[in-house]
Amino acid sequence: MDCIFCKIASGEIPADIVFQNEEVLAFRDINPQAPVHILVIPKEHIESVTKTSQQHEAFLGNLVLAAKQIAKQEGILEKGYRLVINCGSEGGQIVPHLHLHVLGGRKLDDRLG
Amino acid sequence: MDCIFCKIASGEIPADIVFQNEEVLAFRDINPQAPVHILVIPKEHIESVTKTSQQHEAFLGNLVLAAKQIAKQEGILEKGYRLVINCGSEGGQIVPHLHLHVLGGRKLDDRLG
Repeated sequence: MDCIFCKIASGEIPADIVFQNEEVLAFRDINPQAPVHILVIPKEHIESVTKTSQQHEAFLGNLVLAAKQIAKQEGILEKGYRLVINCGSEGGQIVPHLHLHVLGGRKLDDRLG
Repeated sequence: MDCIFCKIASGEIPADIVFQNEEVLAFRDINPQAPVHILVIPKEHIESVTKTSQQHEAFLGNLVLAAKQIAKQEGILEKGYRLVINCGSEGGQIVPHLHLHVLGGRKLDDRLG
């Protein structure tokens, strides 16, 4: 397995981990686009939302609820935040391991892409 | 209830509906930021991800799976797409009824906000 996010999940590569539960792990983006910029990933390798199916329903719900919990931890729950999942090349996904971006800490631009 | 998305869900205000199931409804954004720009909303009024809790886990998973299904319908599943949920003021949420943006149809900008 040569996936950088799998290596972060296994502890082989260090990261600034801010949250985890049984299924997901969250850490700070090394190239933050906002004062708060955290990536939430499944611990198990899933390439993309494109590769998910009905059996992932609870996991995907858990992923979004983890993001909300992280926004609370970071103190941006009330002011606001943005959740983004890039899927595939035109979506801007670079690492082929599903990840949800939590962005906040300033007024975000209205442009979504 | 004076919520524009509730009025779309009830049929009181017309919209270009592209998908629906028991829980969610999807329609084209009237100010699209990309060739494909669709909003996926819960039929039931939920203000924001900020107002969700563990009981919404299956619904939130369903929302993301619906978005993936819509990407497939729109022919952008393989090329790629972006899913965005704006939460609260600094996140850029304008209508206070939870909505997930599905964007695609061109290479999206790497800037997320």
